[in-house]
Amino acid sequence: MQAPLTILKIGGNIINDPPTLTKVLKDFTKLSGKKILIHGGGKRASALMRQMGLEPNMVDGRRITDAATLEIVTMVYAGVLNKNIVAQLQAIGCNAIGLSGADGNAIQSHKRIVKEIDYGFVGDIDEVNGKNITQLLVAGFTPVFCAITHDKKGQLLNTNADSIASRLAAAMGRYFKTKLILCFEKDGVLSNPDDDTSVIPSITFQEFQDHKASGVISAGMIPKMEGAFFALQNGVEEVYITGIRALEKRKTKGTKLCL
Amino acid sequence: MQAPLTILKIGGNIINDPPTLTKVLKDFTKLSGKKILIHGGGKRASALMRQMGLEPNMVDGRRITDAATLEIVTMVYAGVLNKNIVAQLQAIGCNAIGLSGADGNAIQSHKRIVKEIDYGFVGDIDEVNGKNITQLLVAGFTPVFCAITHDKKGQLLNTNADSIASRLAAAMGRYFKTKLILCFEKDGVLSNPDDDTSVIPSITFQEFQDHKASGVISAGMIPKMEGAFFALQNGVEEVYITGIRALEKRKTKGTKLCL
Repeated sequence: MQAPLTILKIGGNIINDPPTLTKVLKDFTKLSGKKILIHGGGKRASALMRQMGLEPNMVDGRRITDAATLEIVTMVYAGVLNKNIVAQLQAIGCNAIGLSGADGNAIQSHKRIVKEIDYGFVGDIDEVNGKNITQLLVAGFTPVFCAITHDKKGQLLNTNADSIASRLAAAMGRYFKTKLILCFEKDGVLSNPDDDTSVIPSITFQEFQDHKASGVISAGMIPKMEGAFFALQNGVEEVYITGIRALEKRKTKGTKLCL
Repeated sequence: MQAPLTILKIGGNIINDPPTLTKVLKDFTKLSGKKILIHGGGKRASALMRQMGLEPNMVDGRRITDAATLEIVTMVYAGVLNKNIVAQLQAIGCNAIGLSGADGNAIQSHKRIVKEIDYGFVGDIDEVNGKNITQLLVAGFTPVFCAITHDKKGQLLNTNADSIASRLAAAMGRYFKTKLILCFEKDGVLSNPDDDTSVIPSITFQEFQDHKASGVISAGMIPKMEGAFFALQNGVEEVYITGIRALEKRKTKGTKLCL
């Protein structure tokens, strides 16, 4: 039988609120079994850009990443955010090790092909090195990934944290009984975006398609859920989209994805 | 018999010159046996500070590190410099993994006690976790350390890269037949600071004391050499202070330290 592994992805809304982050890291540390944390940090990167006189350039919620922007996101994600999260986890007894996708060649990607939009130094994931990540887990480390990958030719690439979570979960599903939790600002996928209590408790891939067609699920939720279903369809045992309140009770409530 | 381990420390002059850095990373990759790289990056941090309207504050070559400065050095050292070095190493076949002292609790320090000067968030090293670092080496990773440590209470601390190199080497000497190479802008310790060819080929601890007393060795070389002798006196097999030309020939010429 495979050992259990929980992969938790947290977004910028958690990271930008220190008391919330501290609470989430405590809850993460209490999770039993092997664990991996993945974090975003876009809002902090945008703030630093503005501080340096640069204007963030977003298209459909995705960041156009020129060379100066790549440098800033690398500094923010892999530098100050990742290392402070690791230091906080170490302080509460979790043997965290902070990684980008370049470290241990964990996540290899390619620069996004230019179609209508040139996203610049943005990476689309080719391969997650489950073997190397498993070695770290077996050695007793808890990997903490930021949203930077590399192309194995020396180029770092800005990469969507939800995409990292889904692809990483799928890769780890070969080695562990893997649970993926995508934690965001709502308590789950909502049937009514204006009603935070309208959490859909479970959703099948067919229902997701229907909700997408009818417009119930839209905008940023679509790529998030597509990634999450990819994970479920590729060897991940359980996938949840949920808020921090669920995590705090150590129950993975929210929206459960079903095949 | 213990396996060989080479620990190479490179300074800011190498990091700030991309063609030189590329060359040094190639030479590092070619070194046989297990390897650890340690890098500084102070000049780049100072440049970013100025870009953000802050003035670097140095006392005797050591950086006064207030909260804003700590954030910047963490971004520069652990973020953009460390991850770009790792990506470059990965591109040439070295399975690098970039670390701060917080990662895997590798290097624990305490905030420097205030005496005449308050250095702020500067760390003095208490303990290097040779066991955790050995696990990474045995698993096939090549650790690349930046000059940030932590106090295991959640606080990151700016830490001198030469000190990290010396203490790390001493800790690893218990597990490996360890060689420490401190690589800097000169070809070795000079008997005449104005003559770059006056490299002292070998120097004993007693000779170091004499040179210090007579003023032949002064300023920044003193703490560097004190750390290097600490390593030699604490289980490190060989210690060299040298320039990149020695590395490129794969011979560790320069100044060899002797007991």
